[in-house]
Amino acid sequence: MAQQHLDPTTDTAAGPLPADTLETYLRAQATEFLRALRRHREDGTAGDPAGPAPAPDPHRPLRRAARRLSGTLHTFRPLLDAEWTEGTRPELAWLSGMLALEHAYADRLERLLQALHRLSGTSGAPGAGPQTVVPGAARAAALLDRQLTLARTRAHSTALQALGSSRFHAVTDRIALLASEVPLRPGSAAGADLRPLAAAAEARLADAVAALPLHTAGHPYNAQALVHGLAPDPAPHPQDAPWHQVRLLLRLHRYAREALAEIPDHDPSGEALDRHRDAAEAAAAAAQAARTPRIAPATAYALGVLHADQRHEVEAARYAFQHSWRARRPGTR
Amino acid sequence: MAQQHLDPTTDTAAGPLPADTLETYLRAQATEFLRALRRHREDGTAGDPAGPAPAPDPHRPLRRAARRLSGTLHTFRPLLDAEWTEGTRPELAWLSGMLALEHAYADRLERLLQALHRLSGTSGAPGAGPQTVVPGAARAAALLDRQLTLARTRAHSTALQALGSSRFHAVTDRIALLASEVPLRPGSAAGADLRPLAAAAEARLADAVAALPLHTAGHPYNAQALVHGLAPDPAPHPQDAPWHQVRLLLRLHRYAREALAEIPDHDPSGEALDRHRDAAEAAAAAAQAARTPRIAPATAYALGVLHADQRHEVEAARYAFQHSWRARRPGTR
Repeated sequence: MAQQHLDPTTDTAAGPLPADTLETYLRAQATEFLRALRRHREDGTAGDPAGPAPAPDPHRPLRRAARRLSGTLHTFRPLLDAEWTEGTRPELAWLSGMLALEHAYADRLERLLQALHRLSGTSGAPGAGPQTVVPGAARAAALLDRQLTLARTRAHSTALQALGSSRFHAVTDRIALLASEVPLRPGSAAGADLRPLAAAAEARLADAVAALPLHTAGHPYNAQALVHGLAPDPAPHPQDAPWHQVRLLLRLHRYAREALAEIPDHDPSGEALDRHRDAAEAAAAAAQAARTPRIAPATAYALGVLHADQRHEVEAARYAFQHSWRARRPGTR
Repeated sequence: MAQQHLDPTTDTAAGPLPADTLETYLRAQATEFLRALRRHREDGTAGDPAGPAPAPDPHRPLRRAARRLSGTLHTFRPLLDAEWTEGTRPELAWLSGMLALEHAYADRLERLLQALHRLSGTSGAPGAGPQTVVPGAARAAALLDRQLTLARTRAHSTALQALGSSRFHAVTDRIALLASEVPLRPGSAAGADLRPLAAAAEARLADAVAALPLHTAGHPYNAQALVHGLAPDPAPHPQDAPWHQVRLLLRLHRYAREALAEIPDHDPSGEALDRHRDAAEAAAAAAQAARTPRIAPATAYALGVLHADQRHEVEAARYAFQHSWRARRPGTR
């Protein structure tokens, strides 16, 4: 199973693909990274994070390149200088993770406020007055706004500090080196083939998907995602982890295809897993807010409805994933 | 549309069906009613309503016969003595509604406690200890138990009083008359045909189903049933009413087929609408309990999760209904 090629585009029919294809991709992504960094510095600090509108995510191009570099170093590490790769990848992961936080908090708040709005039925629904105010929902919205805006402001400061740190300058130096010369493992330039490594990334993805409870997810309204919805442990739902893992493996697979100069299609499977992750984290934020001391019962009630709503979004995303995954690979069950 | 026969079994191919078929059915149901009443009196008062196990629903046979009599009088009223029918039907509706309450409260409590149990993830789910106690869930369960057991006890007393009332004895006398002689409208015995009246009941059902948002219900996870989930008005969701109406029309259609001596198939559409009603009422009970003064925020939170969970059960029931309805009538959209 692990060695089965599910995607004809990574088959070996087209012959081996040499290491210089990888070099071209890595250099291009490194150049993207440096360009994004230069643009970012020219624009100065990115707006007021506590302003009314969500920040336009100024770190996105930097994060995008960092993710691709990190993923590609991982998938093709047998072809690359081991020491350099081991030293670079964790730093890229640190960078993209840290730069993602501010936008993630802004996004989460927007998702939760929209859901509260929808759940209140105040959006011109029949029977509801135009200005119906739901006290619990309004207070829950204010509480989430306060907590997530604070988290976003902190993430903004952390990112600003990090972008001026020596740790960041060290990563930048490594990426600057990559833009001029990719540190290949000695001897790997001749006779290397990218295809088996890309196929292995795809096989890891296929194995992880095969281990998902896709049969359950294919039956709508199975209420799986709400089990543990009331558990006192504020930790992530244990059943979410394999789905998050598939999301990461799907990304690695996507970047591997990009490195092979294949242009991946629009991928609804990946979008479903993005929604899965966003909804799971939004549900956790609602549960977390409900633990705030001395809130009114009506506020806690609204947060409970919101939590369950987002956990159902988790379930809906799983349903959408299994649907698009099966459409994409008709042979798999 | 209203006159279109969707079900071949009510077609006129088999020729007119005379009034004595109706008489036979009404007499049989009246006899069932009287037999259930006698058995009920022999068993004495039905257990302790506040006992730990839900009451075994001792009124079910009585209710079942009363519903069938009431529905049949409605569908075939042009063939029956008008004054007698108008005087009998409201009394049967009063009786079956009143006798249903005690069991409905017991059922609702059981549904909500099971949902809380499932949502707590305490039923041997991986990662959860066998005795994980979720404080909010436990207190929500205790609160619902208290409120719904009180309601059930009151319904029990009301039913006991009603069964000894002169109003009840008057209904019984009317049913006793029916068991011996069905009061037909003068002249309707000769040349009457039950089929057009049964077909009209079916057409009313088809029209009501056609007005349902079946297209939306056919897309899982549409979150329609949760809109208004936070509205301050404790009244029933306005969008539920047409579904409840279809449930009643489906019953009338079923009883009309029984009166025609057709044995209706097992009906998953009707079961889906029973679940729809039960979940909608359970969701309302959770929202109502959350309005109890001075409850802890954790209790209110658990009730919010529970409310949303039951509203998703409402949505799941609509999905199941549209599925089984389309399977049953392949020609309809």
